[in-house]
Amino acid sequence: MSKSAGFCQGCLHYVFDYETPKTLVIPNIRLGFAFRFTQFLVVLYVVGYVCVVQKAYQVTDSVISSVTTKVKGFALTNASDMDPRLWDVADYVIPPQGDHSVFVMTNMVVTPEQTQSRCAELPSPSTTCTDDCDCREGYSDPRGSGIQTGLCVNYSLTVQTCEVLSWCPLEIDTELRAQLAAAENFTMLIKNSITYPMFKFYRRNILPHVNSSYLKRCKFSRATDPDCPIFRLKDIVSEAGEDFQDMAVKGGVLGIIIDWSCDLDWWAGKCYPKYSFRRLDNKHPDNNVAPGYNFRFAKYYKAPDGEETRTLIKAYGIRFDIIVFGTAGKFGIVPTIVNLGAALSFLSLVMFWFYVSGWFKIYKISLKNIFKINITSHPTPVVHFWFLV
Amino acid sequence: MSKSAGFCQGCLHYVFDYETPKTLVIPNIRLGFAFRFTQFLVVLYVVGYVCVVQKAYQVTDSVISSVTTKVKGFALTNASDMDPRLWDVADYVIPPQGDHSVFVMTNMVVTPEQTQSRCAELPSPSTTCTDDCDCREGYSDPRGSGIQTGLCVNYSLTVQTCEVLSWCPLEIDTELRAQLAAAENFTMLIKNSITYPMFKFYRRNILPHVNSSYLKRCKFSRATDPDCPIFRLKDIVSEAGEDFQDMAVKGGVLGIIIDWSCDLDWWAGKCYPKYSFRRLDNKHPDNNVAPGYNFRFAKYYKAPDGEETRTLIKAYGIRFDIIVFGTAGKFGIVPTIVNLGAALSFLSLVMFWFYVSGWFKIYKISLKNIFKINITSHPTPVVHFWFLV
Amino acid sequence: MSKSAGFCQGCLHYVFDYETPKTLVIPNIRLGFAFRFTQFLVVLYVVGYVCVVQKAYQVTDSVISSVTTKVKGFALTNASDMDPRLWDVADYVIPPQGDHSVFVMTNMVVTPEQTQSRCAELPSPSTTCTDDCDCREGYSDPRGSGIQTGLCVNYSLTVQTCEVLSWCPLEIDTELRAQLAAAENFTMLIKNSITYPMFKFYRRNILPHVNSSYLKRCKFSRATDPDCPIFRLKDIVSEAGEDFQDMAVKGGVLGIIIDWSCDLDWWAGKCYPKYSFRRLDNKHPDNNVAPGYNFRFAKYYKAPDGEETRTLIKAYGIRFDIIVFGTAGKFGIVPTIVNLGAALSFLSLVMFWFYVSGWFKIYKISLKNIFKINITSHPTPVVHFWFLV
Repeated sequence: MSKSAGFCQGCLHYVFDYETPKTLVIPNIRLGFAFRFTQFLVVLYVVGYVCVVQKAYQVTDSVISSVTTKVKGFALTNASDMDPRLWDVADYVIPPQGDHSVFVMTNMVVTPEQTQSRCAELPSPSTTCTDDCDCREGYSDPRGSGIQTGLCVNYSLTVQTCEVLSWCPLEIDTELRAQLAAAENFTMLIKNSITYPMFKFYRRNILPHVNSSYLKRCKFSRATDPDCPIFRLKDIVSEAGEDFQDMAVKGGVLGIIIDWSCDLDWWAGKCYPKYSFRRLDNKHPDNNVAPGYNFRFAKYYKAPDGEETRTLIKAYGIRFDIIVFGTAGKFGIVPTIVNLGAALSFLSLVMFWFYVSGWFKIYKISLKNIFKINITSHPTPVVHFWFLV
Repeated sequence: MSKSAGFCQGCLHYVFDYETPKTLVIPNIRLGFAFRFTQFLVVLYVVGYVCVVQKAYQVTDSVISSVTTKVKGFALTNASDMDPRLWDVADYVIPPQGDHSVFVMTNMVVTPEQTQSRCAELPSPSTTCTDDCDCREGYSDPRGSGIQTGLCVNYSLTVQTCEVLSWCPLEIDTELRAQLAAAENFTMLIKNSITYPMFKFYRRNILPHVNSSYLKRCKFSRATDPDCPIFRLKDIVSEAGEDFQDMAVKGGVLGIIIDWSCDLDWWAGKCYPKYSFRRLDNKHPDNNVAPGYNFRFAKYYKAPDGEETRTLIKAYGIRFDIIVFGTAGKFGIVPTIVNLGAALSFLSLVMFWFYVSGWFKIYKISLKNIFKINITSHPTPVVHFWFLV
Repeated sequence: MSKSAGFCQGCLHYVFDYETPKTLVIPNIRLGFAFRFTQFLVVLYVVGYVCVVQKAYQVTDSVISSVTTKVKGFALTNASDMDPRLWDVADYVIPPQGDHSVFVMTNMVVTPEQTQSRCAELPSPSTTCTDDCDCREGYSDPRGSGIQTGLCVNYSLTVQTCEVLSWCPLEIDTELRAQLAAAENFTMLIKNSITYPMFKFYRRNILPHVNSSYLKRCKFSRATDPDCPIFRLKDIVSEAGEDFQDMAVKGGVLGIIIDWSCDLDWWAGKCYPKYSFRRLDNKHPDNNVAPGYNFRFAKYYKAPDGEETRTLIKAYGIRFDIIVFGTAGKFGIVPTIVNLGAALSFLSLVMFWFYVSGWFKIYKISLKNIFKINITSHPTPVVHFWFLV
């Protein structure tokens, strides 16, 4: 009984004792100056780098985005093998609905009047033949145009190739010049609304100070109209360091990158989108496969006799990928304490002890001798001036 | 030799000395209480805020998501200029494949039987003319309808406008009432599967306790059926604070936001999707351009004589963007140590010394005098009760 | 005056005093060894786990990605109700433009020659009728095929159903076998370019050491060709643990997951994509609705008399979702200091004091007695060997 009472008393004793490290105060101006200077560096780092540059006191959230696009413009084609033809938005924007990825056709290979039938394969080392034995019935070369019927037929007067079951006539993909060259003057309106869900922050890329009449006539220009959400295609491609007419021939993928990185601690008016442009595909022909950007689609027709025909279009063009990214930061108590606490303890402990005391000691040089100090032992807890040990 | 031996011995001496700060123990109940109370606050902050509220002991990962949607329903249009017509999914969902972005057409301007030809431009201040000199051959106004031929022709009995080469007849976009008003009763099934790759965690928005027969008849309702993945379009729009019929006329973009934020430390059954709905485009006509949401697409036909005609459709409607976001957290040793360590050292150092010792000292008030303390010097290392300095 | 001067002097005194905790050095080899061993564990944790395993010294950034895909291959269908027909890319890839989500049709239900008219609903318990009273005019069952006209008509010789206004004839969805079974041999080329904007780091999934001639003939194989960006569809599906022919019947969603997690501190050549494959939809019929993946689309035709007909296609197939994720890390001074500082202070404080000193004290066992130590009081600041208190 008395034993446990003594134990409890001992416990209480420990519970309500105040403990503090004993400190030496060395009233030496040079050592004190070195000490304070180190502390100053630490404070400078914490205030200057951690807080101002890195904003490590903030909690961050990633952007959530929705994009709507609308292309405008007309182009006239006047190819020798086709009638003059006007192309409008419904013709050259595929798919039409204006998502975050918009394809504008700038060139095409049109193969009209295709039907399900048999025709001679395009000549190539693997398709030329001299008689039927060179062709395998049912064989389908992934780089060919259809499924071989096993016959060897005349492709031209001089060349014989294997016959294929396919959509005939086959597409002949030779002539390459940008047919919709006028596409460089098309304009694209980008409407982008973003959310930072953690901060319940909503924004649009049409900024509050922009009015409707300005939007009706403006065109984006980094120098004069940085807030205008209407982009001329040629300007975008130029900003990405490419030539529109070059790119239009074989196609490509162009990133319109919208950076919504924001500091929400200050008034929200400071949060605005920053646009940049970059070509995303590899234009160099070596170390590459299928350079440029193209795809095939077909328009299907039905003849009066019920036979299905199609017009195959190999569409070359520029795909504009609107890529929205960003991180918003706002003051948060947890990252502040974590970063300040860690920076302070790390730096106060490591820097000071390591650099000032440590190395001297190893080389048997006493601080006492360097700084010619008088040592006073403080029996009372002393102030830890500023907030460092 | 003896010198280096002495150096080594000195080194070893340092290597295996145990060092500990000398501590003062002040057996004063008031000071001790203040000390422990501050420690209690620190522990409270660490346990309550850092651990329970912020879950700072967790490593986090971002969601990866795949969405499939399927719309169901029929609408009947009975416009004066068209035959009664039934619209089904293949007619009004564009594109049809049901991705994370689904467009449901609610209104349209149909311009049938367009062919490549010449016709009078729609009248506007810049297109009306009195003779051919007012029109520039080859000029293409981005806000116009085609490329001017340089002629001035009759648009109506009283108005003359420049002739354009275009798809004629031109679209006349006047009447605006929601033709597919019945779209409000359409339903959309959303299938969403997510992954947190860091935790190898997979989930679907069809929760394990939901069975097929329930799914066949349920409709999402925040109050009664919060787990049903089938949404009535009108309900979604209402939850976003909008009126469906209003929105259906001019179109708009509606975000279906699925929040998968999860705490994976507890049994995974707690991880379920939270749906919210928000209009993403700006409906106010000022500070805006091209309000609503519409796009143009065409269906191409070939007449028996080979001439291509098209039906141009300006489709107004609601684009449903299914936006999936979320962060999952799970206990991790590194963030635990970082956060606890930082919080503890920061708070123990800063709070206690700063507030209790610091200010007193500056004002030359000795703790000794305030608390009437007896100071005992402890020559042995003393317990740092709980885990605070 | 003299008072404030004294105050200032006092201040200066504090400003330039050097303060350091008094330390006990206990020259006891066992205690010293325990002390150093604990420190060794701390250092091991910091170096081994925080630095090597978790790379907590890095700042991280999330990937931004752009994907282009191209499918190649042919399939021949020979269904009893259709002519032999060849399917090429323009036929079976929907939408055609090759985004990060590609649908390859593997099966279909084709309903040709639909026109806007009236026909008998498909028989089901809710649509069979005996006379007109069983049918409600204007009623549209979401699971039905159109809008009821209120008449009860013959569906077959034995069954009467309600008449609907719809696209007739109605789709009859019964026969289910994968018609485009040859799709398993199709290949998909994936071109993926990524950016880590914070580090201005750009990469493509076609690695620098891969040349064009290799790309022309290679096929991805985890064992032999892990860098080839051309995937045979059957291989992808097999890697995901599924059977292609099974999946082709009802369709499904397959994730091609590209992990770009990179450590950018070392030479960038180490940063390459890791592919994995996973089925994303739920194939089990219970706890599911609308299993598989299908959608309906239509091709519209105009008869010579101007009547619109359509071919409705219910397309079953595999949607390949290319999901790109990743985090790149690079050495950063702030996370280094935060993590090291926090780890060190936490572990040095907690581990050592708690484990070595703490428990002994509570149980009234003096370290002095355990380790038989001689205590020397050090009046000078002593080295804190390595960087621990």
